[in-house]
Amino acid sequence: MTWTIYLSGEIHTDWRDRIREGVAAAGLPVNLTGPVTHHEASDDCGVAILGAEPDKFWHDHKGAQVNAIRTRTLIGKADIVVVRFGEKYKQWNAAFDAGYAAALGKPLIVMHQAEHAHALKEVDAAALAVARTPEQVVELLRYVVNGELAGYTDGQTIAE
Amino acid sequence: MTWTIYLSGEIHTDWRDRIREGVAAAGLPVNLTGPVTHHEASDDCGVAILGAEPDKFWHDHKGAQVNAIRTRTLIGKADIVVVRFGEKYKQWNAAFDAGYAAALGKPLIVMHQAEHAHALKEVDAAALAVARTPEQVVELLRYVVNGELAGYTDGQTIAE
Amino acid sequence: MTWTIYLSGEIHTDWRDRIREGVAAAGLPVNLTGPVTHHEASDDCGVAILGAEPDKFWHDHKGAQVNAIRTRTLIGKADIVVVRFGEKYKQWNAAFDAGYAAALGKPLIVMHQAEHAHALKEVDAAALAVARTPEQVVELLRYVVNGELAGYTDGQTIAE
Amino acid sequence: MTWTIYLSGEIHTDWRDRIREGVAAAGLPVNLTGPVTHHEASDDCGVAILGAEPDKFWHDHKGAQVNAIRTRTLIGKADIVVVRFGEKYKQWNAAFDAGYAAALGKPLIVMHQAEHAHALKEVDAAALAVARTPEQVVELLRYVVNGELAGYTDGQTIAE
Amino acid sequence: MTWTIYLSGEIHTDWRDRIREGVAAAGLPVNLTGPVTHHEASDDCGVAILGAEPDKFWHDHKGAQVNAIRTRTLIGKADIVVVRFGEKYKQWNAAFDAGYAAALGKPLIVMHQAEHAHALKEVDAAALAVARTPEQVVELLRYVVNGELAGYTDGQTIAE
Amino acid sequence: MTWTIYLSGEIHTDWRDRIREGVAAAGLPVNLTGPVTHHEASDDCGVAILGAEPDKFWHDHKGAQVNAIRTRTLIGKADIVVVRFGEKYKQWNAAFDAGYAAALGKPLIVMHQAEHAHALKEVDAAALAVARTPEQVVELLRYVVNGELAGYTDGQTIAE
Amino acid sequence: MTWTIYLSGEIHTDWRDRIREGVAAAGLPVNLTGPVTHHEASDDCGVAILGAEPDKFWHDHKGAQVNAIRTRTLIGKADIVVVRFGEKYKQWNAAFDAGYAAALGKPLIVMHQAEHAHALKEVDAAALAVARTPEQVVELLRYVVNGELAGYTDGQTIAE
Amino acid sequence: MTWTIYLSGEIHTDWRDRIREGVAAAGLPVNLTGPVTHHEASDDCGVAILGAEPDKFWHDHKGAQVNAIRTRTLIGKADIVVVRFGEKYKQWNAAFDAGYAAALGKPLIVMHQAEHAHALKEVDAAALAVARTPEQVVELLRYVVNGELAGYTDGQTIAE
Repeated sequence: MTWTIYLSGEIHTDWRDRIREGVAAAGLPVNLTGPVTHHEASDDCGVAILGAEPDKFWHDHKGAQVNAIRTRTLIGKADIVVVRFGEKYKQWNAAFDAGYAAALGKPLIVMHQAEHAHALKEVDAAALAVARTPEQVVELLRYVVNGELAGYTDGQTIAE
Repeated sequence: MTWTIYLSGEIHTDWRDRIREGVAAAGLPVNLTGPVTHHEASDDCGVAILGAEPDKFWHDHKGAQVNAIRTRTLIGKADIVVVRFGEKYKQWNAAFDAGYAAALGKPLIVMHQAEHAHALKEVDAAALAVARTPEQVVELLRYVVNGELAGYTDGQTIAE
Repeated sequence: MTWTIYLSGEIHTDWRDRIREGVAAAGLPVNLTGPVTHHEASDDCGVAILGAEPDKFWHDHKGAQVNAIRTRTLIGKADIVVVRFGEKYKQWNAAFDAGYAAALGKPLIVMHQAEHAHALKEVDAAALAVARTPEQVVELLRYVVNGELAGYTDGQTIAE
Repeated sequence: MTWTIYLSGEIHTDWRDRIREGVAAAGLPVNLTGPVTHHEASDDCGVAILGAEPDKFWHDHKGAQVNAIRTRTLIGKADIVVVRFGEKYKQWNAAFDAGYAAALGKPLIVMHQAEHAHALKEVDAAALAVARTPEQVVELLRYVVNGELAGYTDGQTIAE
Repeated sequence: MTWTIYLSGEIHTDWRDRIREGVAAAGLPVNLTGPVTHHEASDDCGVAILGAEPDKFWHDHKGAQVNAIRTRTLIGKADIVVVRFGEKYKQWNAAFDAGYAAALGKPLIVMHQAEHAHALKEVDAAALAVARTPEQVVELLRYVVNGELAGYTDGQTIAE
Repeated sequence: MTWTIYLSGEIHTDWRDRIREGVAAAGLPVNLTGPVTHHEASDDCGVAILGAEPDKFWHDHKGAQVNAIRTRTLIGKADIVVVRFGEKYKQWNAAFDAGYAAALGKPLIVMHQAEHAHALKEVDAAALAVARTPEQVVELLRYVVNGELAGYTDGQTIAE
Repeated sequence: MTWTIYLSGEIHTDWRDRIREGVAAAGLPVNLTGPVTHHEASDDCGVAILGAEPDKFWHDHKGAQVNAIRTRTLIGKADIVVVRFGEKYKQWNAAFDAGYAAALGKPLIVMHQAEHAHALKEVDAAALAVARTPEQVVELLRYVVNGELAGYTDGQTIAE
Repeated sequence: MTWTIYLSGEIHTDWRDRIREGVAAAGLPVNLTGPVTHHEASDDCGVAILGAEPDKFWHDHKGAQVNAIRTRTLIGKADIVVVRFGEKYKQWNAAFDAGYAAALGKPLIVMHQAEHAHALKEVDAAALAVARTPEQVVELLRYVVNGELAGYTDGQTIAE
């Protein structure tokens, strides 16, 4: 079985790449999905394709709805949803995705720094794991998907 | 029919009271629900009832899970979910509730000031109405529930 | 048990009133619901409450989404959905409601004149009854809800 | 991942072909589905296979129900539903499909000319994108499926 | 809490009355529902209300679909579905109702004589109780709803 | 796309083989499933594997439940459910399967002779097609799956 | 709103009574439900009503299925499920109910002594609160339902 | 079609291997899944990856939630769930899985020795088969998946 993992949230650091490299190195049968992470394309996709809007609200609205075609579909197909909150910005879309995934019953992994723990307590309370680093997410996937845990199962042949 | 309206989000201003007074004045058959809005009780409910936790993370976790018993149940029973974003704070729980309600297919009304429009575009894109004031929410409910619209239906007898 | 019947579609004739009078005369335990039928209010509700839009598309969009808060909620709560297609206009919202109700598994009664039968064949194919007149709808409800059929059960005491 | 896109509605122009050619040219991993578009076959399939009906209503009914086996199944399996309204005819089946897809929570793209905007406002209000041309639909799919947006992501290697 | 019990199947003996009397005598908070049991009305309801059909197949079809408005709605609302198979006739509608209820996850009580046990084994295998008599059904409801079991709880005050 | 078709009901004639040959001849991308059709194995599977039962009722019960593991799973995975009623026997399991499939929203094709039409009217009323012969079922599948209709689309290249 | 709380599990101590008294004293709008707690009636209900079984397995089976009519229905209707594990016995039905409730998305409160914490870790991991005493459960309900927390909200008027 | 079978419960004997060997020998198209069966890894996965916890309760909690990512996902994807109860230990997680699978409508096979029959009667009552040995489970799968039953279908070519 191939697992589908949706990577939601912060788009300014290389966390998705680090997870991608980690699961590749571990040889995990996972398919990583996520939103369009090109910031300007994500903001302008609605008006670029469907026509300009003089009012910024509708400019944003058209883009956000086009993005929703992708994000809601992929979250709906995911086996696990990982949501990362970065250091900056409001990131309400990340929290929205976490709530959306929770209501669909998707196992949720949340990733953030300690300083946001109190503000994110409701989100964390809906998660099955709270991680700090992409490497921890890779280890979680390695354990969940392949049953491998460093220091415990090393050197064993893990049958699927 | 009595409509159940869940009021999620910001707990530091009187917006819930203003909606409560507005729907009472309009005589709307609505039942307003929401989270526990006593800030300290909301933070401490887990440890106060179930035992202290030396680690702040678990202190928060216990409380957030106890609050989730209430909030997820009431969102699940709501006909309409209203989510207000205030001027300050991260308010990730508000965005989480919006995502949760959206995934359940609940009609969503979002309330926030113009300055947050861009940051909230994904949340707004999932909403059926974006309001600025509690009074607008009352007018929305008056129209949606009773079919009354000031300047249009005044003086008419509106049958249910 | 009280049955909830949603009356969707055409708003220019008195068909809803005739059904209302018929079920009242028959003493049926039914609760009739439907969209806001005040044409101008229905068109303008979005901008009247939430602010004007210079672009007619968004004017319409805001209003249609506010109306959707009411219509989707009430269709979702209905036991039976009746959709009437009138003589004129596109009435795409009526067909949309029929499809919406069908996908939710709601028993569907469609009402229209013979001349529209071919154009409505896909909608009729999803219905459990195709009627011509409000009086037929009343008779359907009398039979479905109370088990009474003129010429058959007259004079019998029909227990619930 | 291969996306499945259901193309509903008008069957008299070449819009499905233009979308088919566009997604092929863009190399998108999409599977296009839709109703049987042979008009006479679609009208007569019921009686041709299951036996003639002297009454036109039942002739239509048998055909529409046979078509429903295909259309409801494929809409149910679609990731995205595109509904096109043409210049002519009632096209109630298109609006029915839009409502059906909306109730199933399928992302909806509606395509029609400006002149139908007011009559289609309830349908548009349920859509995540409103397009005018098949080429816009192709661009939407290119963005949603592959994350490519002309003028923004050109020349980049877009990993899945 | 009031329990809703749908009584499906055979309409030629007094089993529904005997259950009705039994639950009344036991003072159970149950609401009994079922199909229209007037045989001729049930056969002719479609044509009597919506117009005659020369072809017997469509005569039956119209009636069966009108009856389905009632039966599917009430089965969908039932807490428990009781299906009785009588001595005679094919009674395919009874078995259909049993399958329909089973797929909805409704607790199923089947009632039939011993001679039909082999032919009904698939239906019985989906049931949570297989009874012979209406009095056994009453005893089942008395136990399930009120927690009372003759010879065990007699003389005790059973709180809800 | 490969369509999965569940063939329920009568096991004493060669109708499944005729459908199998017909779809093979037509080159349809369909996967045919169904119950175990070896009569004695089907009756005895429970006791043969899990241990004898002196009481015939439990003998039957164990077998029927083991068969249900297969039948409910395969009906749940089917795109279309075909149910055939033969000339003889009670065939309550066929009607049960029809009801089960109907409640799951599966498109239903019912096959039976004219003489059973009245007794099967409730089952037929839940179907999207009522056929007499396996060859008609093959033609239905050819049309539904491939869009081919003899006398209409012959000689055309039908793209998927 | 009245909340429905299902009390599952151990039947040999007075914990249900203590919760009943506690919520009554607190004036909470809750409706408490649960299994039949009369041990012998619960064991024998199947054979007492439906006929004796010489084989103990089927004696148990008939009773367990009759009890399931009650327990699955009431768990399905509950807003919150409380599961108590006592000091003794296997109590697999309690763990089964916890899993059943969790899969339905019911908020789960688990109650047990510290010594069982490790053995119950998977059950606790699915819960939103883990309590030791009935009094804690009452305090949880008082907070969740009424928003009251001793030491925090005392003396305040808590509006619904 | 490949069937997915989840093997839940006891991890101290070789029952999973015996089923694995049996289905391989029978050439069944089945995919076997299950929890991580490395006891220490299963206990410690949470803290090993996400950081140590001084409090044993949270140590267990973190691990149990990480395991739940795997177990709930795989149970949700399973066609059949097999739950084995061993001779020793509380095994509440096995009963929890059985309840979880039952509420999802998964066909359930329970495996245990005769001495646990009474204590497991509620779990058995939710199952479609109760087996004693892994070999019986293999025979059940051989029959359910391939339609083969020793002594009945031997020497026949069983088409899928």
